[in-house]
Amino acid sequence: MQYKLFFRSRRGQKVVFPPPGCRYVSKAAPQAQVEFDFSGPSMKTAVPGPRSQNMSLSQNVGAINFFCNYEESRGNYLVDVDGNRMLDIYTQISSIPIGYNHPALLKLMSNPNNLSTLVNRPALGILPPENFPDKLTESLLSMSPSGMTRVQTMACGSCSNENAFKAMFIWYRNKERGHNTPSEEDLSSCMVNQAPGCPDLSILSFMGAFHGRTMGCLATTHSKAIHKLDVPSFDWPIAPFPRLQYPLEEFSRENAQEEARCLEEVEDLIVKWRQKGKPVAGIVIEPIQAEGGDNHASPDFFKSLRNIARKHGCAFHVDEVQTGGGATGKMWAHEHWGMDDPADIVSFSKKLLTGGYYHRDELQPYRIFNTWMGDPSKNLILAEVLNVIRRENLLEEVTRSGKALLNGLYDLQAQYPGMLSRARGQGTFCAIDICDDATRNSILLKARDKGVLLGGCGDRSIRFRPSLVFKEYHVHIFLNIFNEVLAQHK
Amino acid sequence: MQYKLFFRSRRGQKVVFPPPGCRYVSKAAPQAQVEFDFSGPSMKTAVPGPRSQNMSLSQNVGAINFFCNYEESRGNYLVDVDGNRMLDIYTQISSIPIGYNHPALLKLMSNPNNLSTLVNRPALGILPPENFPDKLTESLLSMSPSGMTRVQTMACGSCSNENAFKAMFIWYRNKERGHNTPSEEDLSSCMVNQAPGCPDLSILSFMGAFHGRTMGCLATTHSKAIHKLDVPSFDWPIAPFPRLQYPLEEFSRENAQEEARCLEEVEDLIVKWRQKGKPVAGIVIEPIQAEGGDNHASPDFFKSLRNIARKHGCAFHVDEVQTGGGATGKMWAHEHWGMDDPADIVSFSKKLLTGGYYHRDELQPYRIFNTWMGDPSKNLILAEVLNVIRRENLLEEVTRSGKALLNGLYDLQAQYPGMLSRARGQGTFCAIDICDDATRNSILLKARDKGVLLGGCGDRSIRFRPSLVFKEYHVHIFLNIFNEVLAQHK
Repeated sequence: MQYKLFFRSRRGQKVVFPPPGCRYVSKAAPQAQVEFDFSGPSMKTAVPGPRSQNMSLSQNVGAINFFCNYEESRGNYLVDVDGNRMLDIYTQISSIPIGYNHPALLKLMSNPNNLSTLVNRPALGILPPENFPDKLTESLLSMSPSGMTRVQTMACGSCSNENAFKAMFIWYRNKERGHNTPSEEDLSSCMVNQAPGCPDLSILSFMGAFHGRTMGCLATTHSKAIHKLDVPSFDWPIAPFPRLQYPLEEFSRENAQEEARCLEEVEDLIVKWRQKGKPVAGIVIEPIQAEGGDNHASPDFFKSLRNIARKHGCAFHVDEVQTGGGATGKMWAHEHWGMDDPADIVSFSKKLLTGGYYHRDELQPYRIFNTWMGDPSKNLILAEVLNVIRRENLLEEVTRSGKALLNGLYDLQAQYPGMLSRARGQGTFCAIDICDDATRNSILLKARDKGVLLGGCGDRSIRFRPSLVFKEYHVHIFLNIFNEVLAQHK
Repeated sequence: MQYKLFFRSRRGQKVVFPPPGCRYVSKAAPQAQVEFDFSGPSMKTAVPGPRSQNMSLSQNVGAINFFCNYEESRGNYLVDVDGNRMLDIYTQISSIPIGYNHPALLKLMSNPNNLSTLVNRPALGILPPENFPDKLTESLLSMSPSGMTRVQTMACGSCSNENAFKAMFIWYRNKERGHNTPSEEDLSSCMVNQAPGCPDLSILSFMGAFHGRTMGCLATTHSKAIHKLDVPSFDWPIAPFPRLQYPLEEFSRENAQEEARCLEEVEDLIVKWRQKGKPVAGIVIEPIQAEGGDNHASPDFFKSLRNIARKHGCAFHVDEVQTGGGATGKMWAHEHWGMDDPADIVSFSKKLLTGGYYHRDELQPYRIFNTWMGDPSKNLILAEVLNVIRRENLLEEVTRSGKALLNGLYDLQAQYPGMLSRARGQGTFCAIDICDDATRNSILLKARDKGVLLGGCGDRSIRFRPSLVFKEYHVHIFLNIFNEVLAQHK
């Protein structure tokens, strides 16, 4: 198949790229349009280079890829200590919202008015700073999911989910009691970890899910054995997540059947666990299972699941730790479902810079507490990130780049049918499957040596997690390099 | 009883304070010696004042004391939005190491070389910044507990303990297996939360303990029912923590008996839980139970407990989240035990600004991972905090202020025997019991209105948690005001 891409030049002309008749190779990618970006990757050594390899760390070094020069990194490009400059489509496990060293953030952090926020970390739950309500209004509350006007900040994604689970348990028990006043037996039994004070309630999760690695979260995480191995857990129900065929629109009948099967299983599990004496207090799900392999489901699936939760009196918790913050082309992935009342709880972290969760009024926060309850210095940065997203229309950019990326992946998939399959995505939140795990890992390393940083997910997927300043011309830089790598593997 | 205090004036003269024959009242407290401190409290309204009361927050507002003006706060004094300036002996739940707006920290955060660390938060486990090894060496590794050369940073105290627990479980299972390679059954069963992959192991904790509020931590927390109520838990063993009599040196025989009783119970529980099929993989304990009421135990108790852990093959985890960072007069409270090999794991957070834990080499970190794994901007601040501690000899100052504080509490206790009892402490990490909960809470509020911020702990204790720049003259300012409050309650 002939590979073709269309995009608009800086002057708005429609350009066919590569020129008709050529294979997919570009001599020079279009220049960067923003001053804080580089023009392309620049590689000096294999990665990790000699300097990185000579550095040591008394922390866990097993997972370290290489050491970075964050001062020199800019926009979409991460620079390492050997001077290699890589187009970053993994962005610190999907956690850098608007690229490296964005001028707006450097300016913000240079403002002497913000010094106090950096050096005096408060116990937010008891002694919030004067400007905290305003910073919340400017940042998190300006993007509240539909139906939610309350938010609780937390320090990281796991703590966000742990506390969201607790909020659901407390809500469920208050509902069971019919009031908020615990009995003497509740109070005494909970001190020694026993029912009824520590009730035998459960959270229903999905195979392939990832909700974090602290012990409550880990009981709902089912993406890789190595995350869970050797850690005691809870006997909580685990439903199948739909295994859809892609492109979704070509398999709508088959996919609807698969989703119906999973929904039926969810209801069966809720009934079964109630009978076992471990009622399901809440259902937790990602809009797109990320660590588990970028598994999608349809808006209809989520609507039905929301209804099942309501029917059985379970809270519905949408975990947007990886999907939230704009990468799907909307601030929240669940906005693609088009619901007024999408969830009871929506948790976030990563690109939002602070962890936390939104909740409906019914899920009272009165007993959710810890020392820091988040970090106002992160809210400060988030407020400015949101200004940049609005000023630079980054959600529209993401939608545009995402289309180019997915179309490019479809084309490459057609070009390398034995190696690539299941290209899928929403916005730039895309993924593609590689024929096997070993080939996937080899491709990741070869792409890195050619100046493109990518991450894996699931058994044999590559996930694309650029920041929100990843433009169409970055897509083409990536596709060129990816094509070269694939051609060498063919 | 006649109240008397001795201290040295700024010119080194020994001063009797108050003058003989007077009650404990001081007209003017000695001036602050450091430029970034105020000379004393200054109250304009009752607390919370009208401005604080008019502010609202869409977060959990139940626990909010008042809103703060952190920009105007300095050293030991927290200023609120109504212009009240309070001597802060609670320091954001014991988490401010060297007071508010320390000039050294303001300078550090104004340095443009540090901007990149503030705006580019890395995924530390895979892509650490170039200077991270040095910052670790300057900060956490310069204060490693005896026997430990490895440290893992985390975002908060709960995550630190959660991951420390996981490290102990993994270590225990590898020991049981005799190697690090899981079986096929381990790998498949853990994906659905079942044994042997998710084994039925336990952590032994103590009544009155506080180790955090995420679900793993919460199973070892037993300080207040309201922390645990309605949250599912694990059936893990809970031993009694010694209920000692104070002053410790006057009740050494009785206290040794009480400690022996608790140690015996620990061994019984370890045996019992092994028989139940839920072996104890680790023991977790605070050097001083803080939230649970500032309960102390002797070095001999901890030495024996360490030996019991070793004898039964359990890991020994010392939780220094509240005690660590200098308030006891040593960087770690466990240093007071005088052991070369005090623990297998020591966790920290709060005053250390970053969470994390040290561990012995045997507790491999290879499967401890999350997105951020801490925050290098906090390590940066910590490195400077440690410079200040050394430069200003703050551990010596703490020891000196702590003596003055405890002596003052002994004197007040003698003066108000019906109201005060069990004055106790190490360094400035002190506490005293009040006759009942209602009186305690009333004293806390009255002290606040007179310009002293204090916190409660346990059922009826007041805990003292000043920062490390709390000097002897601050002790006297506090004692004067506290005496006034007590006199009004008499």
